[in-house]
Amino acid sequence: MGKFSFDCLSAAPFLQTAGSNFNALYITICRLRKYGGAGAVSLSRRSPVASWLCAMLYCFGSYILADVLLGDSPIDYFSNNANVLLASAVWYLMFYCPLNLFYKCVSFLPVKLIFVGMKEVVRVRKIAIGIHHAHHHYHHGWVIMVLIGWVKGSGVALMSNVEQLLRGVWKPETNEILQMSFPTKASLYGAILFTLQQSHWLPISKANLIFFFTLFMATCKIIMTATHSHGSPFAPLESFTSNFLFGNPNGDHDDHSDHHHHHDDHHDASHSGAKSKEDLNEGTRKRKVKKAE
Amino acid sequence: MGKFSFDCLSAAPFLQTAGSNFNALYITICRLRKYGGAGAVSLSRRSPVASWLCAMLYCFGSYILADVLLGDSPIDYFSNNANVLLASAVWYLMFYCPLNLFYKCVSFLPVKLIFVGMKEVVRVRKIAIGIHHAHHHYHHGWVIMVLIGWVKGSGVALMSNVEQLLRGVWKPETNEILQMSFPTKASLYGAILFTLQQSHWLPISKANLIFFFTLFMATCKIIMTATHSHGSPFAPLESFTSNFLFGNPNGDHDDHSDHHHHHDDHHDASHSGAKSKEDLNEGTRKRKVKKAE
Amino acid sequence: MGKFSFDCLSAAPFLQTAGSNFNALYITICRLRKYGGAGAVSLSRRSPVASWLCAMLYCFGSYILADVLLGDSPIDYFSNNANVLLASAVWYLMFYCPLNLFYKCVSFLPVKLIFVGMKEVVRVRKIAIGIHHAHHHYHHGWVIMVLIGWVKGSGVALMSNVEQLLRGVWKPETNEILQMSFPTKASLYGAILFTLQQSHWLPISKANLIFFFTLFMATCKIIMTATHSHGSPFAPLESFTSNFLFGNPNGDHDDHSDHHHHHDDHHDASHSGAKSKEDLNEGTRKRKVKKAE
Repeated sequence: MGKFSFDCLSAAPFLQTAGSNFNALYITICRLRKYGGAGAVSLSRRSPVASWLCAMLYCFGSYILADVLLGDSPIDYFSNNANVLLASAVWYLMFYCPLNLFYKCVSFLPVKLIFVGMKEVVRVRKIAIGIHHAHHHYHHGWVIMVLIGWVKGSGVALMSNVEQLLRGVWKPETNEILQMSFPTKASLYGAILFTLQQSHWLPISKANLIFFFTLFMATCKIIMTATHSHGSPFAPLESFTSNFLFGNPNGDHDDHSDHHHHHDDHHDASHSGAKSKEDLNEGTRKRKVKKAE
Repeated sequence: MGKFSFDCLSAAPFLQTAGSNFNALYITICRLRKYGGAGAVSLSRRSPVASWLCAMLYCFGSYILADVLLGDSPIDYFSNNANVLLASAVWYLMFYCPLNLFYKCVSFLPVKLIFVGMKEVVRVRKIAIGIHHAHHHYHHGWVIMVLIGWVKGSGVALMSNVEQLLRGVWKPETNEILQMSFPTKASLYGAILFTLQQSHWLPISKANLIFFFTLFMATCKIIMTATHSHGSPFAPLESFTSNFLFGNPNGDHDDHSDHHHHHDDHHDASHSGAKSKEDLNEGTRKRKVKKAE
Repeated sequence: MGKFSFDCLSAAPFLQTAGSNFNALYITICRLRKYGGAGAVSLSRRSPVASWLCAMLYCFGSYILADVLLGDSPIDYFSNNANVLLASAVWYLMFYCPLNLFYKCVSFLPVKLIFVGMKEVVRVRKIAIGIHHAHHHYHHGWVIMVLIGWVKGSGVALMSNVEQLLRGVWKPETNEILQMSFPTKASLYGAILFTLQQSHWLPISKANLIFFFTLFMATCKIIMTATHSHGSPFAPLESFTSNFLFGNPNGDHDDHSDHHHHHDDHHDASHSGAKSKEDLNEGTRKRKVKKAE
């Protein structure tokens, strides 16, 4: 339901999909292996089933989340046997290949840059398809369209807590929504842009929007990967908008911030004091524990 | 699916809904801001997206949960653009209004009492509609009817753990089901009453039941808000029923509780001793940490 | 949807179902009471609602999970009033029966052995029905068939984290997928076998497969219950397959493991060193806290 069904006769478009997905799979499972650190490798030794499930979440997380949000079966995408097989093969090679050959190849920077760029191509296409799909279900559900597009673009990142729990790790203090990474943020902005385009509020054709957004994403991501930078290119724009919309992050109301500066600082201090009632407990405990060493 | 669809021509009932929802929104987001403490304010500064998502959970949690339980799309309700816009506006004013004017107005006791009373009107209507809706899907599914009614009445409270996780807070030791607040408890009892009425086991018309239950809820809630009390008006009835149905909470079987009193106490002590194997660990850790200061 | 509907006239098959379910219910709620320890008893005193919800999860967890995975309503099964009533009666007797009579009867070893064996009969039938059901939805979705069969066989075990959270307990370090118990593992293997059979890759009739797998499961489980053993009968087979497929659990590649032994050990040590960055923190904290006593 809601998936563009293909029959076995017309294998051509499918092979194309698989081909483009292949690149994305490389990168996602590579990311699983890299971010999970040796923990991911050790997990693959201790519990191949959990490791495989994690890899599937990484590869198809966006489809799972979008299906959950639209009330479809979360494992609907797993009926694409070829894609699941491909992802499983990549997972197997990534973790169990003799001499780590496969991982070393993919981690080699020039190869990685190509894959990273291609992944962004897939991401933007996923956002566009997700919004088209949501638009098909809810013609005027703009919030739904943005949410589905966001989820299709960010994938597993938005359910990182669930994915960590599967690996037996639990970090409730943070999540992807509280501290958005570049791809999550860009997916959100992209989803808003594509929703505006879909609702004919943005005077640009969809093909052009896809082209320019892909160009922007791929360039940003390739530069960030090449320079190992984590800075967001949205930072200046965000700081301005946030200042305008949500007031000074250091004060409650910016129209009074000049001559009430001291008062504001005070106010804010008491804020963070009160706020961190629970955070502090956590923090204190950790610090005390460290002192107790 | 399962929503009473409205077309754009007949705006009157919609406006009425929006109007009555407006009061509920005031109170729910006010509650978010109040219960979240300055943590909620600080969250709204650090991550407006997470704060907005929390506010939406608070406002539409009951619809989301009911949709999840009935297998519909959890974000189905977000196609009501006007309601989402209204809730977003209230959220924005509540957190970002200069001088905190909006929050101070709504927190002013006489104003609050009106809104609190109106919220209970909305709550009872939601329970009744939820049970009607569940009855439409499952004609003899009494448990389902009670569950949907409960969920429609309690809303976000029943998924407080999820909501906290979104804010980066994690308190697994307790949840709304283990320690029910008054609205959650009243919603459960209300859902049972409405289910009995719907199944024609209660010789009262639905209109009358709605009227009397609303009266009861609004009175209770207004008194509790005005006197800042947290006692449950169900306490005496519950203690009697619980004694009758589930035995003495201090012993295992009440028919022996007089001449086995000492034995029972002992039994119970060993119980709580054994029970708290895991709780104790947690507790001990915290105490030790505090001592270590 | 997807449930074999019965009308009130043909009560015979229903009574049969209820009869066979009765045995399973005994054992599941017995397990809840036993594994939850006195914590489960204390929970039943403090919060009967949470205790009842837990019991329902234990009894119908497999249906709930399968419904969630297939995108149906998770509480769909609760429209079977008779089964819910039966489960509730067993729950009530198990926890609130005077003198603990009921629990003592069921825990009596010879009685328990019969029930344990019968539970495995129900389990295997559930796996077979689950796979048949999934096959009906997705004709070539082999992964989906295995997942649904697994979930139908393991039930609440696969959502133990959710179930614990409901009781106010939180153990994120482990879950059923990381450390599979015998029934979970056997359900997974059974689901794979039944999927192969359903896809005509296994030259055996379904009736025969059900018979032999039930025989195997019941024998294993009865022996394990009688001898209080927790060893898995799959251990030798697993160690061989795992060695072959996933490499030496102690090294990265078994073809080099003889003359690279020292290197490998080293490698592994650094692995576990790096891996446990987060685990260690947790562990250290606990140890330090204990020292601080």
